[in-house]
Amino acid sequence: MIPVDDSPIIRDGKSLILAYDHGLEHGPVDFTDVPERMDPETVFDIATHDAVSAFAVQKGLAEAYYPSYEDDVNLLVKMNGTSNLWMGEPDSPVNCSVDYAAEIGADAVGFTVYSGSNHEVEMFEEFRDVQEKAREYDLPVVMWSYPRGQGLKNDTSPNTIAYATRIAHEIGADIAKVKYPGSQDAMELAVKAAGATKVVMSGGSKTSDEEFLSTVNSAMNAGAKGLAVGRNVWQREEPAHILDALEELIFNGKSVEAALE
Amino acid sequence: MIPVDDSPIIRDGKSLILAYDHGLEHGPVDFTDVPERMDPETVFDIATHDAVSAFAVQKGLAEAYYPSYEDDVNLLVKMNGTSNLWMGEPDSPVNCSVDYAAEIGADAVGFTVYSGSNHEVEMFEEFRDVQEKAREYDLPVVMWSYPRGQGLKNDTSPNTIAYATRIAHEIGADIAKVKYPGSQDAMELAVKAAGATKVVMSGGSKTSDEEFLSTVNSAMNAGAKGLAVGRNVWQREEPAHILDALEELIFNGKSVEAALE
Amino acid sequence: MIPVDDSPIIRDGKSLILAYDHGLEHGPVDFTDVPERMDPETVFDIATHDAVSAFAVQKGLAEAYYPSYEDDVNLLVKMNGTSNLWMGEPDSPVNCSVDYAAEIGADAVGFTVYSGSNHEVEMFEEFRDVQEKAREYDLPVVMWSYPRGQGLKNDTSPNTIAYATRIAHEIGADIAKVKYPGSQDAMELAVKAAGATKVVMSGGSKTSDEEFLSTVNSAMNAGAKGLAVGRNVWQREEPAHILDALEELIFNGKSVEAALE
Amino acid sequence: MIPVDDSPIIRDGKSLILAYDHGLEHGPVDFTDVPERMDPETVFDIATHDAVSAFAVQKGLAEAYYPSYEDDVNLLVKMNGTSNLWMGEPDSPVNCSVDYAAEIGADAVGFTVYSGSNHEVEMFEEFRDVQEKAREYDLPVVMWSYPRGQGLKNDTSPNTIAYATRIAHEIGADIAKVKYPGSQDAMELAVKAAGATKVVMSGGSKTSDEEFLSTVNSAMNAGAKGLAVGRNVWQREEPAHILDALEELIFNGKSVEAALE
Amino acid sequence: MIPVDDSPIIRDGKSLILAYDHGLEHGPVDFTDVPERMDPETVFDIATHDAVSAFAVQKGLAEAYYPSYEDDVNLLVKMNGTSNLWMGEPDSPVNCSVDYAAEIGADAVGFTVYSGSNHEVEMFEEFRDVQEKAREYDLPVVMWSYPRGQGLKNDTSPNTIAYATRIAHEIGADIAKVKYPGSQDAMELAVKAAGATKVVMSGGSKTSDEEFLSTVNSAMNAGAKGLAVGRNVWQREEPAHILDALEELIFNGKSVEAALE
Repeated sequence: MIPVDDSPIIRDGKSLILAYDHGLEHGPVDFTDVPERMDPETVFDIATHDAVSAFAVQKGLAEAYYPSYEDDVNLLVKMNGTSNLWMGEPDSPVNCSVDYAAEIGADAVGFTVYSGSNHEVEMFEEFRDVQEKAREYDLPVVMWSYPRGQGLKNDTSPNTIAYATRIAHEIGADIAKVKYPGSQDAMELAVKAAGATKVVMSGGSKTSDEEFLSTVNSAMNAGAKGLAVGRNVWQREEPAHILDALEELIFNGKSVEAALE
Repeated sequence: MIPVDDSPIIRDGKSLILAYDHGLEHGPVDFTDVPERMDPETVFDIATHDAVSAFAVQKGLAEAYYPSYEDDVNLLVKMNGTSNLWMGEPDSPVNCSVDYAAEIGADAVGFTVYSGSNHEVEMFEEFRDVQEKAREYDLPVVMWSYPRGQGLKNDTSPNTIAYATRIAHEIGADIAKVKYPGSQDAMELAVKAAGATKVVMSGGSKTSDEEFLSTVNSAMNAGAKGLAVGRNVWQREEPAHILDALEELIFNGKSVEAALE
Repeated sequence: MIPVDDSPIIRDGKSLILAYDHGLEHGPVDFTDVPERMDPETVFDIATHDAVSAFAVQKGLAEAYYPSYEDDVNLLVKMNGTSNLWMGEPDSPVNCSVDYAAEIGADAVGFTVYSGSNHEVEMFEEFRDVQEKAREYDLPVVMWSYPRGQGLKNDTSPNTIAYATRIAHEIGADIAKVKYPGSQDAMELAVKAAGATKVVMSGGSKTSDEEFLSTVNSAMNAGAKGLAVGRNVWQREEPAHILDALEELIFNGKSVEAALE
Repeated sequence: MIPVDDSPIIRDGKSLILAYDHGLEHGPVDFTDVPERMDPETVFDIATHDAVSAFAVQKGLAEAYYPSYEDDVNLLVKMNGTSNLWMGEPDSPVNCSVDYAAEIGADAVGFTVYSGSNHEVEMFEEFRDVQEKAREYDLPVVMWSYPRGQGLKNDTSPNTIAYATRIAHEIGADIAKVKYPGSQDAMELAVKAAGATKVVMSGGSKTSDEEFLSTVNSAMNAGAKGLAVGRNVWQREEPAHILDALEELIFNGKSVEAALE
Repeated sequence: MIPVDDSPIIRDGKSLILAYDHGLEHGPVDFTDVPERMDPETVFDIATHDAVSAFAVQKGLAEAYYPSYEDDVNLLVKMNGTSNLWMGEPDSPVNCSVDYAAEIGADAVGFTVYSGSNHEVEMFEEFRDVQEKAREYDLPVVMWSYPRGQGLKNDTSPNTIAYATRIAHEIGADIAKVKYPGSQDAMELAVKAAGATKVVMSGGSKTSDEEFLSTVNSAMNAGAKGLAVGRNVWQREEPAHILDALEELIFNGKSVEAALE
C-alpha cells in the first residue's frame, strides 16, 4: 500500500475518476445519443474540470491525447479491457504494461477483476503482476472490482459488493471501484469490508441529475471516498454542470440540493 | 502513438499499402488465374510503383526478397498470419518478433486482431507486446481489425466496423485496416470512432476497376486515409494501370472518372 | 529445508499461527457475528498476543497494517488464495511474489496446495517456485496441505491427512498445516508421515473452548508442533482468553483443564 | 533467409538429407526387418556416404554418436518430434533448444509443422522461435511441412502440397520437405509456390529401387532441389547401392537407368 | 550425452538405484506393513549400503536428510512426481529446478516421462529443459520411461518397453528406467533399442527373493546395466540381505543361487 493520499489523483482524501473506456468495452453504441463525444478530445476537455481528479482511459487514447493535456489532467491508464463482441466467462486482456503506462505519464493504473469468473485465478495473477510493478513506480492501483460469472446470480447484493471491496483490499488495491449495492447500509458494509482500501462508487448508466447525485450522496455518507463515473458525465449535454455539482457534493460536503444549485 | 505522418509509409498523411500475404492466408488458390504472381519477385516489382507507400508481407518473403528492393519499397512486416487449413475460432500465430522485423529492415509492422473471437483476450495481449516493442523502434503499427468469431453474425455492419476502428484506437494502433462497411455514411462513422487512428480501407476480393475505385473514393470521402489492397492489384493483368488510378484518386484527389483515364 | 527452529515464527520448536485470510477465502459472512473484526487492525492487535508466533495474512493487509506492527507481530504472508465465488476444481491464484513478500517484511510464507485437484500439477509447480525463491531469503515455507477435488470423497480420513503431510515433506515444506484427522492415532500417523516437516493442526470453524482445546491437546500429544488457527480465535468475543489457554497448552505443556483456568 | 547455398548441407545447390528419427516417431517396428539398423552407429556409418549432405537425427543420437562422426557427417538436428503412442490432433514437442543444437555441432536444424492441425497456431510460434534463433547461428532451417489434422482429408493433393511449400516460404524456412504430390506437374506447382525456399521431396515408406528413383527423378525434373530420405535408404540391405544411384541422379544429373547401373 | 561412466552413480558401468519417492507417488499405504520405513532416515541408512550407487528421492527429503549422508550416499534428485489422488491423463509436476538440485548436492537427476499420455508433448518439453540444464552441471539424467495413457493398453509389451528405451535415447537420457517386459528376449530388444543409453530395470512391487533376483538376473543377461528398486528393498525386513545379493548379482556377476547365499 502506498501513501495514496499524496497522489495527485486524490484530493482531500477523495477522488473523482472520470472513466472513458466505453469505446472499447461497449463499442460505438454508447455514443449514439452524443456522437460528438466519440471524439476523445471532447472528453479530455471535460476531464480538465477541477472536479476530476483522474481521467481513466485505455493506452491508445492516452498515447494520442494525453501529451496535450498533461498539465490539466491526471492520467489513470486502464490496464485491461475487452470488447463485448465475444461470449464466454468474463475475462479481460491486459492491454498495457506498467512500464509503458509509466513511460507515457500515468499517475495511476486501473485494473478490472471479475471475481467469480472461471478466469478469476488468471485475473488475480495478472493483477498481482500489475500491482507489484506499479509499486515500483509509486503508482496507485485502482481495482474495478466486479464479481461476475457463472457462479453469481445477483452481482450487486450487499454481500457481493462487500466481498468485492474486501478482495480489493486483500490482494492489494489502493482504491476499489464497485457498483452501488442498493442502499446506504449495504455501502457501509462494503466500506468496512474494504479496510484501508478506499472505496469509490461506480457511476453506472445514465440517470437523472437528482437520482444520480442522491446515490452518490448516499455512498459518500456510507464512507465512500468518491466516484468513478463515465456515462453520467460525458453522455450529458452539459458535463460541466454535473461536475460542478459533484465537486460540491464530494469535495465540499454540500447536500444534493445545494450541490445542484 | 508515434508521429506516423513522418513515417515513410505515409505520404501527405495518406497511405496505400499493397498486401501480399495471401499465400499464407489463402494458399495457392489465389494464384490460379495469375500463376506468375505466385513468384514473390513479380509482386515486389509491382510494389516499386510510386503509388505504393508500403508493402505488407510475411517474414519469409521479407527475408528473401527485400534486400534487393530496400531502396524502392517500404517494408511492412505482417507479424501474424495463419493458413486456412484448420477450423475453429479465429486466431493467428505470431510469426515474427519485432526485434527481428526491425533487423530485416521493417518500416512498419502489421497485426491482425479478430475481436469477437474466443481468442480475443490472447490476441489483444499479443498485440500489446508487439505494439509496445514497435514503439521502441518507432515503427508504426497497422492493425488488421477484423471482428470475427462465434459471437458475430454480420462482420461488416456499420457498428461492427466502427467498433473495429475504435478498438484499434483504444489499444494503440496507428492505422486501422477495416473492411468497407457498405456505405459512405457507415465509413464516416468508422472514421469518427477511430479518433486519432488513421483508417484505411481493406481492398477485398477482386472487382472491376470502376466498382473498386468507386468504393475507394467513397471511403476517402468518408475520411479514410488510404487503402490496403492485395488481390485488386496483383490479381490484375496490369497492376500498374490500377495503381496509376489509385495514385490519382488517393494522393492527388482526382475523381474516379479522371483517375481512370 | 532451512533451520526453521531459528525462525522467529518458531518458539521452543513450536508455532501458533494466527490466520486471517478469511475475508478473501470466505468473504464477509465470516464476520457476521463479529462485525468489528472485519477491520484488520482489530486482528493485528490480537496478533500481538505473546502466544501468537506468526500472523498469516494476504499481501494487501500486510502492506496496509504491518508497518505499524512490525515490532510486535511476526508476518507470514499467505502467497495464494481465492474467493469462493466461482465453481470448479480447486485452485488458488498466487497473489504475491516472494520478492515482494520479502520486501514488505515477511518472516515466512504460506501456500495452499490442493492435492487431488485437477490443478495439482500446476499447484505443485507454483509451490516449487515459491519454495525455492523463499530458500534464497531463508524464509520458512508453510504449506496449507488440503487434499481436495473430484478424486477425493472424505478429505479428513487418516490416510488422506497422512498423505497430505507426506506431500508437504516430499516437495519441501518446512511446516504442514492440515485438518485434524479425527483421532490422536490418525494424527500420529500424519506426524510420522511428515518426516522432518513440522505438522500444525488447522483450527477449523468455531467450537467451544473445551472442545477446541481438547482437539489441540490431542494433536500436540500426537506430535504436532502447534496450531494454525483463525476463527476459533478472532471470532471469539475475548480472543486473549483462548490465546492465554493455547499458550499454556502448546508452549507450557499444561493440561486442557489447567490451561483453561 | 540465409545464403543457404554456402551451407555444408548444400552441394551444388542441392541436398540429400538422410533422416533417422523413426525410432522416436514410429518406434521399434520400423526396424523389424533390419534389426541391426536399430543401432544408430550403423546408420551414422551410412551417413558418411558422399551422397549424403546432411544427417537428420534427434538430440539424443546427436549427443551420443556425432562426436565420432563430425569429420564425415553434416549434422541436422531435428528439433521437434513425438512418439505415435498418443492420439489427438497432430502436435510435436520441441525436444532441443537451438542453443544446445549449436553447442553439439549442428550444421542445420529441422522442424516439423503440421499446418491444418488445431495446434497450428502453437507450432507456427514454436517455429518462429527456432527460426529466429537459428538465424543468429547462421543455421539453415529445414521445415518438415506436413499439413495434417481434422481439417484435411487428402494430405498429398497438389494444392495441399503447394500450400505446404508456400507456408514454409512465408514463415521463413530455407528448405521445405514435403511429400510427393503424385505427379511432376503437381510438384512443379509446389516448387513455384515455394518461391525462394528450396523444396526437397520426402522419401516415404520403402519401395523398389526403380519406383523410388523414378519418383525422385520426377521431383528433380519439377525443380525440387533434392531429397530427404530415411527408410528407402537404411531399410535396404545395401544402402550404399541406392545412395550411389541417388548421387548420380541428384548431383550428377543422370537418368534413372544410368543412375541404377 | 555425458561420460556417465565417470559419474559416481555408476560403478563398473552399472548402477543400482534405490528409489524412495513412494510417499509422494503412492502415499502412506506403501508403509502399512513397514511403518518404521515411513521415517526417511531409516531408508537413507539403507542407502549407505555399498551396493547402492544412487539414492532417488524428491527434493524435500534431499533437503532434510542428505546433509547428514553426503559422504555415504550418492544423491539422485527425482525432479518430477505427483500424488495418486487425482484422476486424468498421466502427468507429473516438476517439483525441483535443476539449479536447486545442483545446489543441494545432486549427483544425478531423475525425470518421469509418460509417453502415450495426452500430456506427452508437455512432458517431453519439460524433460528437454531439465536435460539441457543438467548438461551444464554434468549431471547424468535418468528417465523413468513409462508409456501410459489413453492410447496404451498393455504397457509392458515388448514393443512398448523397447519404444520406451528408444524414446529415452532419442531425446537424450543417459539412463532409461523401464519395467521388465516379461522375458529376457524382450529385454534384449529394449536394450538394443536404447542404443547408447543404459537400461536399468524397474523393481516393481515386492516379490520373493528368488523371483525378484531371477528377474534381475534375466534383465542383466539381456544387457541391462542395473536396477532401480524401491519396495523390493525397503519393504523387506532385512534390506541389507537383498542388497548383499543384488551386489553379488549385478556387480560381481554371480548366479542367483550364489548371490542368495
